[in-house]
Amino acid sequence: MTTWQQYLDENQPRFHEELLDFLRIPSISSLPEHAADVAKAGEWVAARLRKAGVENVRMMQTGGHPVVYGDWLHAPGKPTVMIYGHFDTQPVDPLELWTDPPFEPAVRDGRVYARGAADDKGNMLIPILATEALMQTEGKLPVNVKYFFEGQEEIGSPTLPPFVAEHKDLFACDMVISADGGQWAEDQPGLSVAFKGLCALQINVEGPDHDLHSGMYGGSVPNPIHALVRIIDSMRSPEGKIMVDGFYDDVRPLTADEQTQIERIPFDEEEYKARAGVDGLFGEPGFTTLQRGWARPTLEVNGIWGGFQGAGVKTVLPSKAHVKITCRLVADQKPAHILDLLEAHIAKVTPPGVRVTVERSGSTAQPYMMPLDHRGNEAARAVHLKLYGKEPYYVRSGGSIPVCSMFLESLDAYTVNFAFGLNDENVHSPNEFFRLQSFEKGQTAYCMLLHQLEEVAA
Amino acid sequence: MTTWQQYLDENQPRFHEELLDFLRIPSISSLPEHAADVAKAGEWVAARLRKAGVENVRMMQTGGHPVVYGDWLHAPGKPTVMIYGHFDTQPVDPLELWTDPPFEPAVRDGRVYARGAADDKGNMLIPILATEALMQTEGKLPVNVKYFFEGQEEIGSPTLPPFVAEHKDLFACDMVISADGGQWAEDQPGLSVAFKGLCALQINVEGPDHDLHSGMYGGSVPNPIHALVRIIDSMRSPEGKIMVDGFYDDVRPLTADEQTQIERIPFDEEEYKARAGVDGLFGEPGFTTLQRGWARPTLEVNGIWGGFQGAGVKTVLPSKAHVKITCRLVADQKPAHILDLLEAHIAKVTPPGVRVTVERSGSTAQPYMMPLDHRGNEAARAVHLKLYGKEPYYVRSGGSIPVCSMFLESLDAYTVNFAFGLNDENVHSPNEFFRLQSFEKGQTAYCMLLHQLEEVAA
Repeated sequence: MTTWQQYLDENQPRFHEELLDFLRIPSISSLPEHAADVAKAGEWVAARLRKAGVENVRMMQTGGHPVVYGDWLHAPGKPTVMIYGHFDTQPVDPLELWTDPPFEPAVRDGRVYARGAADDKGNMLIPILATEALMQTEGKLPVNVKYFFEGQEEIGSPTLPPFVAEHKDLFACDMVISADGGQWAEDQPGLSVAFKGLCALQINVEGPDHDLHSGMYGGSVPNPIHALVRIIDSMRSPEGKIMVDGFYDDVRPLTADEQTQIERIPFDEEEYKARAGVDGLFGEPGFTTLQRGWARPTLEVNGIWGGFQGAGVKTVLPSKAHVKITCRLVADQKPAHILDLLEAHIAKVTPPGVRVTVERSGSTAQPYMMPLDHRGNEAARAVHLKLYGKEPYYVRSGGSIPVCSMFLESLDAYTVNFAFGLNDENVHSPNEFFRLQSFEKGQTAYCMLLHQLEEVAA
Repeated sequence: MTTWQQYLDENQPRFHEELLDFLRIPSISSLPEHAADVAKAGEWVAARLRKAGVENVRMMQTGGHPVVYGDWLHAPGKPTVMIYGHFDTQPVDPLELWTDPPFEPAVRDGRVYARGAADDKGNMLIPILATEALMQTEGKLPVNVKYFFEGQEEIGSPTLPPFVAEHKDLFACDMVISADGGQWAEDQPGLSVAFKGLCALQINVEGPDHDLHSGMYGGSVPNPIHALVRIIDSMRSPEGKIMVDGFYDDVRPLTADEQTQIERIPFDEEEYKARAGVDGLFGEPGFTTLQRGWARPTLEVNGIWGGFQGAGVKTVLPSKAHVKITCRLVADQKPAHILDLLEAHIAKVTPPGVRVTVERSGSTAQPYMMPLDHRGNEAARAVHLKLYGKEPYYVRSGGSIPVCSMFLESLDAYTVNFAFGLNDENVHSPNEFFRLQSFEKGQTAYCMLLHQLEEVAA
């Protein structure tokens, strides 16, 4: 009789082809013109789930991009887990920095290069393939499994909370297993126990109601770009401390234990700088780089634009200027409250003579933290020990996975993070890639995890 | 026998059609993809000159956009004047703010709306039509006239100085008459006696060598946009004083006479604000709005860009940020020296961890001032008295016409500014227009001016 591992080995060539097909769909959730592609990616996932032997597969409308759901619930007395991932991707600009077209996957040196390769198409396909292997070789799954794949993670899953709340019973589970995220290193497992929250806004500044001749009006008419840079520059000190009143008030300080735990984890600052492609680092005084990344909130400008951006010179005093800003938040900051503080700050520092409007983005995420000894973590830890021969690190992430806190609120279920991306894979940047080795190892790991979970009392 | 005025009256319908043809050519000199259109506009001008009876008409290569030259030199013992204008235009963005497509001229309420209508196609066509009227009715011109029309004024005429120096003899003249500029008001003539100089640069800031995930690197890796806003914000005080060391050192202070002369000119601040479309003004402390615009140097950001500018949210820490800045200069500031001071300031305030490069633009202009009682001004003043029944104001402009100082340096000839644009015609902005009444009045004025100049001793 074929084992699931033999089945995985025999079918890898086909699985690789399927991954490339999946990556060819330009499912960019932030760009309206790609909405149909996001839906197309959802259809692809639904078809792949059915092929794997999953039942009750359906596309569900959310008011935003769709969710693909399916389940296999024939393990009475066993726990019910819900596997999560997302089939949408980040945008691709700046396009000119890509070696290959972002949606024409290229395989080189055991890596597949494409937007979404690691975040999250490569990772979310893994549990589907593991499911097929178990169904094909054992005829069943060790536990009850629900599958929940969404298409709006990269824009903060704005319409998911009401949708999930509305279908509480359908999605009810003992825990969520997230196939979005990664491991500490190729040979070192990690269990993510905390994610940062997120809030985002756009500031629009208008000066004159039309572009003006800089010679006729310069020096006398307020320039919206000068006003905007004043506003932005007031938000952060040169050292990197955020100067918005009250911004740090709700930050949970690191306990001595948490500090020790972070110090136990090796962190190579030189390698970090090399990955970032910078000569030097900076940051909020009084904290290490790892503490800043994991346990301190941040504020970053993501984009700015206004006036003339073409070749040559245009002697214009522009009418408008815009900036996009996101903050990464930690427990117990609340996104809506932080946006209130930012708006109050902007109102306070806006120079006279310009009109400012602030657009709050629907993309928000609550900060998330889970107990280290959660039974799902214990099961994952057991798999890690077998697969890597090492204890996992209990790590945090500066990234945001809004669904973790959302599932906790709506379903009272913590999310165990079990995915195989690695930190150097250029997620959200040009030339994103995923290691095919991680792709295969992940399939084995998911088969093992589902068996491991069988032993967890429901 | 037909007088030149009768000839002008009879031929206006044709002249209007010719103006519209001229305006249909999208001769944007700052955009490489429009270089062929600039040349096409030059060909149009050359053909029109020949048709008017001008001799030795030719396109001349300058190393940049071409110059169109022609002459009529059969008035021995009379002065030789060289008429100047430009057939290139500003860019058109933001395109969405135009009521009509910028290069599909629309005539409404006695105005023609198009990019270049006032600056400078409408104005530069005037002397050509006046020439035709005189040649057709009197068979000759009252003075020797050279015609010099260029295609790179809107980018600061970068290749003109060496070109003119190289052809000193061909362009030798007693004075230049510029058909680029305007009058004080519809019923009030003005003589421009000073223009501001100009220098321009672009600042490029690079942080990480590729875009980064703001969650993984935010708060620790220097963000080039934050660095850029710090640099820009340091250049101007909130009140509008330029904070670059040495920036004001070479500024010629206003004499008591000059101040009185400026005070004699009515200036309606409310109307100025209404034209600019702003609620309030600001500016360098200790000066009036008119003094700031005419006699004080300025620094304005013309455009800024970096990172994500699309719809929605992209949680990125961008790799690059850019800004375009121009300064308007007054006598006796030197553009190259001001650029040195700006570069020194930028180097001084650049925060650590980012790489900054400064691109100096070829678009520079020396500040220009001429004697009020120059004989060309006297001739123009006589025409104004007849045509308007009023003494002209001796005005300055915050705008730059680099060729005035260039002709002074190369040809030792001052430039008399004799043009008919008005301040509300949205030059350099969406919905630029030119009054057809000014177009016709200008033709009459040029016929009168050439006769008036006949009385000026050569």
